[in-house]
Amino acid sequence: MTAAYEVDPWCVRETELDLDRLAQSESVFSLSNGHIGVRGNFDEGEPHGLPGSYLNSVFEQRPLPYAEAGYGYPESGETVINVTDGKIIRLLVDDEPLDLRFGRLAGHERVLDLREGTLTRRLEWQSPAGPSVRVTSTRVVSLTQRAMMAICYEVESVDQDVRIVVQSELVANEPLPDMGQDPRTAAVLESPLVGEEDLVSGDRVVLIHNTRVSGLRMAAAMAHEIEAPTKIHVQSDSHPDVGRVTVATRLKPGQKLRLIKYVAYGWSSRRSRSALHDQVIAALAAAEQTGFDGLLAEQREYLDEFWRGADIEVDGDPEIQQAVRFALFHILQAGARAERRMIPAKGLTGPGYDGHTFWDTETFVLPVLTYSLPAAARDALAWRHTTIPTAVERAHQLGLEGAAFPWRTIDGRECSGYWPAGTAAFHVNADLADAVVRYLDATGDEDFAAEAGIELLAVTARLWRGLGHHDVEGVFRIHGVTGPDEYSAIADNNVYTNLMAQKNLRNAADLTMRHPDVAQRLGVTAEEAADWRDAADRMFLPYDERLGVHPQSGGFTDHAPWPFDAMTAASYPLLLSYPYFDLYRKQVVKQADLTLAMHLCGESFTPEQKERNFTYYEALTVRDSSLSAQTQAVIAAEVGHLELAHDYLAETALLDLHDLNGNTRDGLHLASLAGAWNALVCGFGGFRPNAGVLHFSPRLPETIPRLVFHLRYRGGILRVTITHAEATYALVEGEPLSLTHHETAFTLSPTTMTATYPLPPHHPSPHRPTQPKGRSPLHRSRQLLARE
Amino acid sequence: MTAAYEVDPWCVRETELDLDRLAQSESVFSLSNGHIGVRGNFDEGEPHGLPGSYLNSVFEQRPLPYAEAGYGYPESGETVINVTDGKIIRLLVDDEPLDLRFGRLAGHERVLDLREGTLTRRLEWQSPAGPSVRVTSTRVVSLTQRAMMAICYEVESVDQDVRIVVQSELVANEPLPDMGQDPRTAAVLESPLVGEEDLVSGDRVVLIHNTRVSGLRMAAAMAHEIEAPTKIHVQSDSHPDVGRVTVATRLKPGQKLRLIKYVAYGWSSRRSRSALHDQVIAALAAAEQTGFDGLLAEQREYLDEFWRGADIEVDGDPEIQQAVRFALFHILQAGARAERRMIPAKGLTGPGYDGHTFWDTETFVLPVLTYSLPAAARDALAWRHTTIPTAVERAHQLGLEGAAFPWRTIDGRECSGYWPAGTAAFHVNADLADAVVRYLDATGDEDFAAEAGIELLAVTARLWRGLGHHDVEGVFRIHGVTGPDEYSAIADNNVYTNLMAQKNLRNAADLTMRHPDVAQRLGVTAEEAADWRDAADRMFLPYDERLGVHPQSGGFTDHAPWPFDAMTAASYPLLLSYPYFDLYRKQVVKQADLTLAMHLCGESFTPEQKERNFTYYEALTVRDSSLSAQTQAVIAAEVGHLELAHDYLAETALLDLHDLNGNTRDGLHLASLAGAWNALVCGFGGFRPNAGVLHFSPRLPETIPRLVFHLRYRGGILRVTITHAEATYALVEGEPLSLTHHETAFTLSPTTMTATYPLPPHHPSPHRPTQPKGRSPLHRSRQLLARE
Repeated sequence: MTAAYEVDPWCVRETELDLDRLAQSESVFSLSNGHIGVRGNFDEGEPHGLPGSYLNSVFEQRPLPYAEAGYGYPESGETVINVTDGKIIRLLVDDEPLDLRFGRLAGHERVLDLREGTLTRRLEWQSPAGPSVRVTSTRVVSLTQRAMMAICYEVESVDQDVRIVVQSELVANEPLPDMGQDPRTAAVLESPLVGEEDLVSGDRVVLIHNTRVSGLRMAAAMAHEIEAPTKIHVQSDSHPDVGRVTVATRLKPGQKLRLIKYVAYGWSSRRSRSALHDQVIAALAAAEQTGFDGLLAEQREYLDEFWRGADIEVDGDPEIQQAVRFALFHILQAGARAERRMIPAKGLTGPGYDGHTFWDTETFVLPVLTYSLPAAARDALAWRHTTIPTAVERAHQLGLEGAAFPWRTIDGRECSGYWPAGTAAFHVNADLADAVVRYLDATGDEDFAAEAGIELLAVTARLWRGLGHHDVEGVFRIHGVTGPDEYSAIADNNVYTNLMAQKNLRNAADLTMRHPDVAQRLGVTAEEAADWRDAADRMFLPYDERLGVHPQSGGFTDHAPWPFDAMTAASYPLLLSYPYFDLYRKQVVKQADLTLAMHLCGESFTPEQKERNFTYYEALTVRDSSLSAQTQAVIAAEVGHLELAHDYLAETALLDLHDLNGNTRDGLHLASLAGAWNALVCGFGGFRPNAGVLHFSPRLPETIPRLVFHLRYRGGILRVTITHAEATYALVEGEPLSLTHHETAFTLSPTTMTATYPLPPHHPSPHRPTQPKGRSPLHRSRQLLARE
Repeated sequence: MTAAYEVDPWCVRETELDLDRLAQSESVFSLSNGHIGVRGNFDEGEPHGLPGSYLNSVFEQRPLPYAEAGYGYPESGETVINVTDGKIIRLLVDDEPLDLRFGRLAGHERVLDLREGTLTRRLEWQSPAGPSVRVTSTRVVSLTQRAMMAICYEVESVDQDVRIVVQSELVANEPLPDMGQDPRTAAVLESPLVGEEDLVSGDRVVLIHNTRVSGLRMAAAMAHEIEAPTKIHVQSDSHPDVGRVTVATRLKPGQKLRLIKYVAYGWSSRRSRSALHDQVIAALAAAEQTGFDGLLAEQREYLDEFWRGADIEVDGDPEIQQAVRFALFHILQAGARAERRMIPAKGLTGPGYDGHTFWDTETFVLPVLTYSLPAAARDALAWRHTTIPTAVERAHQLGLEGAAFPWRTIDGRECSGYWPAGTAAFHVNADLADAVVRYLDATGDEDFAAEAGIELLAVTARLWRGLGHHDVEGVFRIHGVTGPDEYSAIADNNVYTNLMAQKNLRNAADLTMRHPDVAQRLGVTAEEAADWRDAADRMFLPYDERLGVHPQSGGFTDHAPWPFDAMTAASYPLLLSYPYFDLYRKQVVKQADLTLAMHLCGESFTPEQKERNFTYYEALTVRDSSLSAQTQAVIAAEVGHLELAHDYLAETALLDLHDLNGNTRDGLHLASLAGAWNALVCGFGGFRPNAGVLHFSPRLPETIPRLVFHLRYRGGILRVTITHAEATYALVEGEPLSLTHHETAFTLSPTTMTATYPLPPHHPSPHRPTQPKGRSPLHRSRQLLARE
């Protein structure tokens, strides 16, 4: 795979058009604020890879069928829908529609600007009939006005006097390309919106629709500002599924028509049609008052503040430099204004995974937001808090105490149709508890703790207490669950699950007992907390003395090895060619599981165990999941395989820009993008925050001479600068901080704002761990060294 | 539940009509020969519980849907269909249709005669308009002419001169009552037959149909003999879905109209319409030549010969006496003429389980046939042999060697839509291998061994060799499989599976090496056989030293106990109220698993282990499966709990006659019926055949003073008579036999035709094992003792 994008530290720029890779580039060029999201489709609608406009939590329900039903199987699922498309601006040049499949493209550029927060497109096109035009469009999805998208569209005649018609549209129920889905599902999603109202007033159009089954109502509205050198003719019309403002004019060479389009979205499960109508009209008015340049200025200001506390500089690998900023930008876009709605695995960049959120949001994405945009992390957790009643009901249905949060969902209901890899993966509950504790530690947000955080810990602790049991020797076991590795399922005493549950139980006990008023409200007594602590203290961890490693779950190291030597490139991902039963019963790992436990629960392993475990699982891990490489990077760095860590960093960071898995078309992999941050900050930075102390153990591979990253922590900003020789910790702003550098404790404060420590000598292990045949990461570090 | 049937040693007689239990009685009164089967629906078609006419292996395909698909999941399933109904004979008395819901029923009787092999019905009915008629019908599904059903229908006027019209019909695509199925499935099955030809010639009608997807063609034909005291008017007509012969006459009081209806069925996936047409016409001709009385005489002769080698006499419990003959009769009906087609779990008595066959045919039903009608056992195994190509293909799809026989099927393809309880239950392969070895031992059928038996052993041995693996210490393990207990799944080293696989491997090695020509044809070398023996010898059997019991599978005894004390009657069957994930991870057993291993692989356990294991698993076994009680009876008897064994015997034997599970409406439970034989012969008889020696360890509960059973073995017949004092073994006919009585070896031969041995003293255990609260079997033995 070659990158289609120029390497630039602050931009992603495409200068050549590859119509076969349109869907991939549409995902890369998505704009979103977490509330609304639009794919990078061309203004003119066609050609497209996959048209997409999404509103957070606007979905349709569809039946989940089973060949053999079972108690507790969810009867219906939820699927994100492509809502009314407000991006469309069609152009006709002397009657010839602008369509890049025809005519001649004399220039093409798309630029995603990571500081401006805009997608700009420039093209020069010669119509099949002769005349040429230059088109420039700048699209922004506002981070400050969450309901708003705006587009500044300019068309200029190059060489002739031409008739120009621009049609700015709202289009509902766009036909979608066949996604190879089950015909029943496809039918549900083909025309998901039922028109409820369409009206036009001047150059302003409103369309209101609702969904058939899920009972949601949505409104889209547009308004325009038009500048033209000569007389224009404007005409507007609306229909149930189309709103249209048509602008006709003539342009001489060098003359420009400029159309600014404001698009507002609103949706609700409860508000009335007129309320929604007024809401979008109001949003339009606010945006028009701000003006397009005003929106751009707000956007830049918002982003400047974001980057001030979040930017990462990576020397020595410009592609990674670009990729990590691209990653941070998209994570910001996914989380910034999600505001008590969920953050899907693909953000609002595509329909992949049905638009669901999974455990990876809490485990991989929220750490990034926690230390760069903590309010967004809070909102995501607050959304989980709003779903507690659903999770309690689900737990009750399953015969469990507390709350059982869903494996995959949009609105909080379990949507997993395969329980061994869904319902049984209870670790999602500990993952979100861990995210709560991380957020509380990073912010000291006592209000959130009292309102939501402690309750999330308590309801999940109750789940664990009931899910596990003491054996006759008093050991606490958790049987029949599925850990992160999806090539294993329904096992006893998964180490990751048991350790995360242990943390969950302890933190729930500590926090409830520290907040007696909250404990009382939740009905948590000292007896119950003691019971949680006891279960945590007696938690069973399987260990294979013979091999000197932890089995991922009880019995794992007794399984037959997977026949890796018989595999070819076409064998991967294994799940497409091998049945689950065979994957589950052999030693093969889809994604970091025990290795993830060593990252998130590192204190439960000795350094020697970490090294032995890492080497053992490296030989079994095929990375058929995009969630894996980052964790392998973090632990590779911790145990001293720094070049390998760099290789994994590259894999996670470039997954979407290089479309490494061939499925970026369905949307970006937010968790993999977050992996760039994780690999750099937790891997090379050795960042392990814990109970008010920021622990760092920095170490850099030969390929990276310098790494700088910023963390927001307790209202302040910390800058860490690492070179091969030393690390400098600088308090950019904020209250005093406690830190360690390779176990040397120190503090920073407004009086001692920086501290520099030498890096301990690095003794690289002579033996690079091996991966299954053909599944090693690309040796990027070796290539970089060769290039020098 | 009270029995609806009078207790009679050779009949099942119903004298009161309960319209609410019609469907249950229709199953009980089913007639079948294994080739064709008809439910005991009334001649006049209505009222009915569930109309049903079935042809072995006539099914329709339907899509199997999945909420989340996976590699290797079957895409379509198979469902038995209700074929053209040939039973229907409608009667009109002075224009009033005979319908038991109206008018007055002055007499009603249905009798299933287990020696005659007929269903006879007698009724006297007064029409709402006044006149009364007596109707007698005798229905027979011929065991000697496998395509034939015949009905002798007589109507007599009681008190008035009446006009009588009798309509004898063939009806395709009968409307079925709503079975609460998935609407998609229901749609497929609603009108499964597409008319291809209908023709009428005199009182002879032929209807030919085919199925939409499965590509089967079927023909039904009828012919008639009519006797009437006066002039009759006969008229015939046919339509795509209806063939009708109408007979009109007048009867004075005491006069009778007699109609004999012959119905022939034929079907094929390959033969032409005209071939099928001719086939059914020919079958009709043969039956007409035999005549109705001739058919009855053949039927009686066939059954006399069957009972001579199969009958069981049970003194002391007349209901069990009736039930065991009822059971043997229905097993005969299911297997007699199946002839290289499968024997479904419900025979041809109803649409339950989609008409599929499962492992229980080989494990529970074939033992009965092996020792009472060995040719039927051979044919059932020969059917499995014909499906080897499909099973090899399935194994290949699953990445395995050898053959993987389906968990549930009609034509050999896997139809299970839930792999943890389907594909993963690989023990079905060892079960059928065991049935082959049992059949070969019982018959010495070297032809079958060479043609089919050894190949079945070899392809299954190859499966086991590839499914298991040696660990680093050389121990052979089988991981990630599901044993018989469906409340556990995907476990390592299921004792039952490992022991049965061990037998399979050893028997395959022995038999292939004893037949070098067959081995060569199958490509089995001495090296491969040695490899099988090695795997068998090193088979791992988990054992819990702490508890002194075998865990059902590795780790089972570490699981949390099921909260039995919190259960109520409404909690059962548990699978309707608890999710699989919770059942799987706790100590709760749906059906005998380790206990079944102790029956079928008894030599692998010491007597002390058997007693301890039995007691341990009794406390965990809820018998939510009808397959369980018989095995609990067998081992209860073996370890000395004879009254408990009687209780379990009653549960398995009376399951359908008393409709204990409330689902006899869907068809009879053949395996449970077989359980009556298993409990008596293997339980109280202690019958354990092994390698040419018939081992017996008889012991009778206080409630049963005498038990006699017959076994066919190597062409001869053995009669065993057991009393509390002694057991007498008599060679009724045949070659010399080797036997043991409680480990005393002896032989019977034409010169020494009987031997009598005293029973050893029985020392009843003071502690009756306990079952989960509310799940003890009914204390039948105690009731019987109290009654005395």
